[in-house]
Amino acid sequence: MSVPAYDDQNVFAKILRGDLPSHKVFEDAKTVVIMDIMPRGDGHVLVIPKAPSRNIFDIATDDLHAVMSTAQRMARAVKAAFDADGTTIQQFSEPAGGQVVFHTHVHVIPRFEGVALKPHTGQMADPDVLMANAAKIRAVLE
Amino acid sequence: MSVPAYDDQNVFAKILRGDLPSHKVFEDAKTVVIMDIMPRGDGHVLVIPKAPSRNIFDIATDDLHAVMSTAQRMARAVKAAFDADGTTIQQFSEPAGGQVVFHTHVHVIPRFEGVALKPHTGQMADPDVLMANAAKIRAVLE
Repeated sequence: MSVPAYDDQNVFAKILRGDLPSHKVFEDAKTVVIMDIMPRGDGHVLVIPKAPSRNIFDIATDDLHAVMSTAQRMARAVKAAFDADGTTIQQFSEPAGGQVVFHTHVHVIPRFEGVALKPHTGQMADPDVLMANAAKIRAVLE
Repeated sequence: MSVPAYDDQNVFAKILRGDLPSHKVFEDAKTVVIMDIMPRGDGHVLVIPKAPSRNIFDIATDDLHAVMSTAQRMARAVKAAFDADGTTIQQFSEPAGGQVVFHTHVHVIPRFEGVALKPHTGQMADPDVLMANAAKIRAVLE
């Protein structure tokens, strides 16, 4: 596929290396889950494969499967943690597809009756709120 | 999870049984791909597991993995078929999450620089256009 090569200077690669902080929710052998710092709704998390890949066009099958198993686990967890009515899962590939950080990631967003997704404002959420929401999800997972 | 049980009278179950027509793009042992008849962009396809499940909350792991392997294959195919610049993948669970048909499905939408997703108008696309787009994708897959 004619997509650019993976660049390991992206924000998620830095988080995976421990060079940048994150609000971590979950980790297993192949995936990490963190809070989205510009959430489109309370409890919005990102599932990130540990192995490098840019997006859907180059991710290895076993990494894609691991990401989706974790996404399913997170969908159930955020539904329980926030008493949500449903979930929206999104995966964006390349800028035209909505991708901003070029390490594969899947958005899992708890949804509530009558509440639209917030627009992308570029505003960071209150770190205390993110920390509290991460703790709520971890409590369900334990 | 407290979600309703699977109801086999949904539209995708009827399509899988052959009781309703569709513009079929692809089929393998565990999945079927059809054109979305209310596309949010040209080439918008739906990946549907053959096994019954309502959404992310109850789908079996192997069906979820099969759906995502097919979704990846479709992302590559629609990118090539329509010379797209990227893709957007979406999965909606429960009405609050955006789900309308209650058989698990994953949206794969080719995306183009500067072209927003069309809103959900409830308008059906021209069947001739859907048929031509399905043929374009099948040609890439062959």
